[in-house]
Amino acid sequence: MRDYVEIGIGREARRAYELRDLSIVPRRRTRSSQDVDTSWHIDAYTFGIPLVSHPTDALASPEFVIELGKQGGLGVIDAEGLWGRHASLDDAVGRVVSSAKQPFGIVSEDQYREYIDAGQRAVRALQELHAAELDRDLLTERIAQVRDAGVTVAVRVSPQNARELAPVVIAAGAEILFIQGAVISAEHVQQGGEPLNLKEFVGSLDVPVVAGGVFDYSTATHLMRSGVAGVIVGSGESETVTRVPMATAIADVAAARRDYLDETGGRYVHVLADADMTGSGEIAAALACGADAVMLGQPLAQASEAAGRGVYWEAQSAHPRFPRGGVRNELSGAQVPLEEVLFGPSSDPWGKLNLVGGLRRIMGKCGYTDVKAFQKADLAIRT
Amino acid sequence: MRDYVEIGIGREARRAYELRDLSIVPRRRTRSSQDVDTSWHIDAYTFGIPLVSHPTDALASPEFVIELGKQGGLGVIDAEGLWGRHASLDDAVGRVVSSAKQPFGIVSEDQYREYIDAGQRAVRALQELHAAELDRDLLTERIAQVRDAGVTVAVRVSPQNARELAPVVIAAGAEILFIQGAVISAEHVQQGGEPLNLKEFVGSLDVPVVAGGVFDYSTATHLMRSGVAGVIVGSGESETVTRVPMATAIADVAAARRDYLDETGGRYVHVLADADMTGSGEIAAALACGADAVMLGQPLAQASEAAGRGVYWEAQSAHPRFPRGGVRNELSGAQVPLEEVLFGPSSDPWGKLNLVGGLRRIMGKCGYTDVKAFQKADLAIRT
Amino acid sequence: MRDYVEIGIGREARRAYELRDLSIVPRRRTRSSQDVDTSWHIDAYTFGIPLVSHPTDALASPEFVIELGKQGGLGVIDAEGLWGRHASLDDAVGRVVSSAKQPFGIVSEDQYREYIDAGQRAVRALQELHAAELDRDLLTERIAQVRDAGVTVAVRVSPQNARELAPVVIAAGAEILFIQGAVISAEHVQQGGEPLNLKEFVGSLDVPVVAGGVFDYSTATHLMRSGVAGVIVGSGESETVTRVPMATAIADVAAARRDYLDETGGRYVHVLADADMTGSGEIAAALACGADAVMLGQPLAQASEAAGRGVYWEAQSAHPRFPRGGVRNELSGAQVPLEEVLFGPSSDPWGKLNLVGGLRRIMGKCGYTDVKAFQKADLAIRT
Amino acid sequence: MRDYVEIGIGREARRAYELRDLSIVPRRRTRSSQDVDTSWHIDAYTFGIPLVSHPTDALASPEFVIELGKQGGLGVIDAEGLWGRHASLDDAVGRVVSSAKQPFGIVSEDQYREYIDAGQRAVRALQELHAAELDRDLLTERIAQVRDAGVTVAVRVSPQNARELAPVVIAAGAEILFIQGAVISAEHVQQGGEPLNLKEFVGSLDVPVVAGGVFDYSTATHLMRSGVAGVIVGSGESETVTRVPMATAIADVAAARRDYLDETGGRYVHVLADADMTGSGEIAAALACGADAVMLGQPLAQASEAAGRGVYWEAQSAHPRFPRGGVRNELSGAQVPLEEVLFGPSSDPWGKLNLVGGLRRIMGKCGYTDVKAFQKADLAIRT
Repeated sequence: MRDYVEIGIGREARRAYELRDLSIVPRRRTRSSQDVDTSWHIDAYTFGIPLVSHPTDALASPEFVIELGKQGGLGVIDAEGLWGRHASLDDAVGRVVSSAKQPFGIVSEDQYREYIDAGQRAVRALQELHAAELDRDLLTERIAQVRDAGVTVAVRVSPQNARELAPVVIAAGAEILFIQGAVISAEHVQQGGEPLNLKEFVGSLDVPVVAGGVFDYSTATHLMRSGVAGVIVGSGESETVTRVPMATAIADVAAARRDYLDETGGRYVHVLADADMTGSGEIAAALACGADAVMLGQPLAQASEAAGRGVYWEAQSAHPRFPRGGVRNELSGAQVPLEEVLFGPSSDPWGKLNLVGGLRRIMGKCGYTDVKAFQKADLAIRT
Repeated sequence: MRDYVEIGIGREARRAYELRDLSIVPRRRTRSSQDVDTSWHIDAYTFGIPLVSHPTDALASPEFVIELGKQGGLGVIDAEGLWGRHASLDDAVGRVVSSAKQPFGIVSEDQYREYIDAGQRAVRALQELHAAELDRDLLTERIAQVRDAGVTVAVRVSPQNARELAPVVIAAGAEILFIQGAVISAEHVQQGGEPLNLKEFVGSLDVPVVAGGVFDYSTATHLMRSGVAGVIVGSGESETVTRVPMATAIADVAAARRDYLDETGGRYVHVLADADMTGSGEIAAALACGADAVMLGQPLAQASEAAGRGVYWEAQSAHPRFPRGGVRNELSGAQVPLEEVLFGPSSDPWGKLNLVGGLRRIMGKCGYTDVKAFQKADLAIRT
Repeated sequence: MRDYVEIGIGREARRAYELRDLSIVPRRRTRSSQDVDTSWHIDAYTFGIPLVSHPTDALASPEFVIELGKQGGLGVIDAEGLWGRHASLDDAVGRVVSSAKQPFGIVSEDQYREYIDAGQRAVRALQELHAAELDRDLLTERIAQVRDAGVTVAVRVSPQNARELAPVVIAAGAEILFIQGAVISAEHVQQGGEPLNLKEFVGSLDVPVVAGGVFDYSTATHLMRSGVAGVIVGSGESETVTRVPMATAIADVAAARRDYLDETGGRYVHVLADADMTGSGEIAAALACGADAVMLGQPLAQASEAAGRGVYWEAQSAHPRFPRGGVRNELSGAQVPLEEVLFGPSSDPWGKLNLVGGLRRIMGKCGYTDVKAFQKADLAIRT
Repeated sequence: MRDYVEIGIGREARRAYELRDLSIVPRRRTRSSQDVDTSWHIDAYTFGIPLVSHPTDALASPEFVIELGKQGGLGVIDAEGLWGRHASLDDAVGRVVSSAKQPFGIVSEDQYREYIDAGQRAVRALQELHAAELDRDLLTERIAQVRDAGVTVAVRVSPQNARELAPVVIAAGAEILFIQGAVISAEHVQQGGEPLNLKEFVGSLDVPVVAGGVFDYSTATHLMRSGVAGVIVGSGESETVTRVPMATAIADVAAARRDYLDETGGRYVHVLADADMTGSGEIAAALACGADAVMLGQPLAQASEAAGRGVYWEAQSAHPRFPRGGVRNELSGAQVPLEEVLFGPSSDPWGKLNLVGGLRRIMGKCGYTDVKAFQKADLAIRT
């Protein structure tokens, strides 16, 4: 039974919870973090770490995607971002980056106005760069470059353009297809249009599909029934379209996975949490809520391989009409190699580096040696 | 059953909730935002968007009111504000605006004191400007100017002066009368005075009346029984007189609408939420709590047509004895046409522009195509 | 039944609430604020407003005490403060005031250190000034000066020194005796010492006694049984010794008043809330929780009659070993006459001026015409 | 029965609480703080105050440890810190301290970056200093120096190195052994390694053992069964590895103590709270939750005897891979003798000085004369 409150006469709302309010309660036996196995298996693929990058050009330079693959994770390329639109990725990203200002030293109206203006200039630059035509040959060429490096190739398309672009990116070498929008459903209803029948479409593809974001049990169940290999919970944004608290959303979708597993007699659909996590603690909380892997954004912008050189934005910041989240230039200190972001060593006392080391440590200290077992960890909530 | 806590021995308080704590849970089917119908029908009038401006002279220049009408909304003129008191509206508003300082660059006691003083000077200017005598001819002339532009004319009077001023503004062209104070009741009791009998008064008028603000089921029910076409919940202030959380207040008044509909066998009284909403997310939450339309203030001050040129205040800031809320000069960036505030395009990543587009998107992503259905959306609450 | 949570295995805590989380729900009938009667009757005394000043020398200059009395309230003189210790009150207070710095313009380590040092210097000055010997003739003379002005004279003594000082201040003209410490009980147990038997002591006096602060039902009941005319809830500090949330404490003590009234067949003991209220909203909340009057501190420091010229501290800041709260210099803008602080007119948009006007307005808008009825107002709580 | 919420479908979390949300409700009888007995008896040792220092080199200079012992508390030496690694403790600590910057005057990107860099340099310095080889003779010599001063000698070793180092430090004079890591269990499981069998190990020692940190009932029970004299709850960090709220953790471990006492027919295992307390209020809350003594860190850095001269860090900041918490330079004002930090006199109005005086006062005002009785004090919780 859900936990409901009456917010007004005859109107109920369900209590929902955020990841940051969760604690994981240690079990009786601690484990060495060296004995913790973080590997993640989806379809025919195995990853050493349950970590997928958010499909934003702020992260996905070819170097970044290749390096993340080599480190055991999965980098996702946005087929509808800058890769297929601009001959020089460096120049395109550079145009956005050069607009972004850090939020320091603002002690006058003029400086504040300039900071706000810079934020809008950066968004406008993104919008213009995304308005350029998509050159499929260029996109194909760049995807092939990643494939040649020997890492697993994952490419994201939007639900709107999936039918058109999926064949292109699969031909180019995509081994896992992400169909990802801010909010998705198995059955998008559009008057007069011809919505994507996800079940039919997924069935027609030769590669596994991961789709999302979803926020509830019912939508997740329908996505699972369409044959996807994984479902993404959330949209990376801290302030999502509908502001559904993520701990609840992840746990609900994990429940859908459980019920669908029973319904099908054994089809396990993976749950990926795309929940604006800031460090090992929230990554651990997302897994403990039932996620099999996490989709990570801003924390990976610390990597020197990241395209944005420390500046971060999400795909939705480039939306022509509803840009959200903005171009953030909030990192401090020098960037470090991705390997160091993931595995240390670290002299950073705020837990922003050594993300996987931190996760292993939490899992071990709490007494768990693999993610599947950790999904059942005892939770406490601060309220 | 309400949800009560015992705050002390034998003393209970009802749990109440704010709009900002609400989330809307998407349904299984997403919709295109192009298929979302936001139209609002009240009495004989139809509006393309469920959006009414708060009756403050910080917004209501004649240009603003006309433009808001053309864009599908309803601008409300304050009959007891500056329109009927000063030959030059520009000069009057300008006197207030020139006093207001932005809260930046304060690094000394003197600067802080100057900021506080400026805030009081701006309020004093408002108070003095409101103390000028009301010139009914001037007011009539200005209302007629709006009427001539072909948009629906809505004028606000206070409960105290309704009897005297309503005939004037109706004669001048007001098609919808707003009787609006910070808190109102159908039966205002004053010793030795002759309070407004709202039922009798509303019955005597030829135009539909919208009245408020109210904060509870019982007062709302009594207002409905007085024959009004609409009830306003709230008073626009973030810190209201009695600080009643607005999600609860809106849901309670929507319950009163439902019960009154049943009681009368079909009289539908509209609920307008005047709840200091800051963007599309809170507008959507207010509708999902049961509002038929929202009364919007500060976010519309971004419009270049707004009288205050980015500076905002509410009518209660001009109160001769209890000025509240102050004259706020917190906007940043250049002002943009009202059309852009409502419908974009936008390079603003904080969701302050494209308010209606944002609302449509939320409704569509959550699976709803009209406001009436959206009033039943599943809610979640962060606690 | 109280509302308890289990904070750990076998360990419970009662849920408790703060004044600032309360809202007052308007009733069906609004009233004019002119019809609101705020008068307060205790023992043989009647006050126009239910407002007592906290016994601190930051407020209580003779001018302040006299003016507060003339405005309808009750100013309380601290018999153990500076009045009886220093020939020139102005010089003594001035020494404290000149040390206090405002918290602005701190942008370096040196400036922060200087701000902290200034705070400690101000406290040290207070401690030293309080260490001077008490000159009973001087105290007597100053109390008489207030009495001669024709206002009701209230003097505070500590529980420790009550036996010794009460006769002195009563002889000097005190008409109401406040026995007030941070936490008080009817039965203070001290090994080897001779604690004050409050019942016997109160019975021996010719003037009504108000005693506190208390925080719970049981201590309040015992104080009431000792024969006091009033009980003070709280100690004025926002961060009290035991940090008990004040809405709960006031409601509990009001319950003790009710039960004691029944137990005695009609003895009504007044409840005074000393709860660090910042404006009309919290004063109203304290009354709605069951207080008959409020003891007010910092907001009265805005009065030009206040001794501290805008600088504020509580008696406990002078404690030789546990100074608490500090000397605060946080006011901005010029000081205004006490009359304006209480009754306006006001150009202050933050509700800090016109405190009584604001209270009347809240009571009237919520539909109440006297404090006794207002104690039963419907409450809502934000959680 | 615990208090659980459903955070998502089929996934529960237990509600948990922080110390800072607790209030202690005064009883009917107040006591003089002079009658409060704060003495703490563990094994054969008696301490005047229930106060143990966190084993960090930021505190533990030999002077600090000796002075804390003389003042009635217990200073804990970290056997794996700088004492046994560097000939000049002053130089080693000085290298860390000189890197740390205070967080003031940051108004530009460069200054912020420099502040962040300084934080990382300080951590790196700590990491390098901890990488130096452990000289057992040097460690032995320094421990002996403390022993010679006549105070009780307590030394901390990590679970990993306990077997190897315990004999060394006991031979050097340690009278109480602390086996302390961020999270500990009685049965650490490591594949291929040979984990410490705590029961066997504790039984083999001649000195009492205090072990931790633990966060739950079950782990605490198992530690108790291993024969330790005391269990530490928490790890000093405000943001612990698993972020378990500390009021709940302390109360749970106190429940384990109670049950273990019953199970063994009388073996009382002490509970030490290591919970990042900031002053007397939180120390009192920790005891009221069931702790017998508290382990204190940052507040003791105000002592002029503290090694870090006001700069503070915890052992985990030196962790080679997961440094946490950082080197904090947040104190203001001059340092004062430890005696003044503990017992005043104080001109500090924020309750940071006179920690034990403040504790006595809270206990007395609430009506308790010893810690054991105070563990049953009535609690209230703000939620």
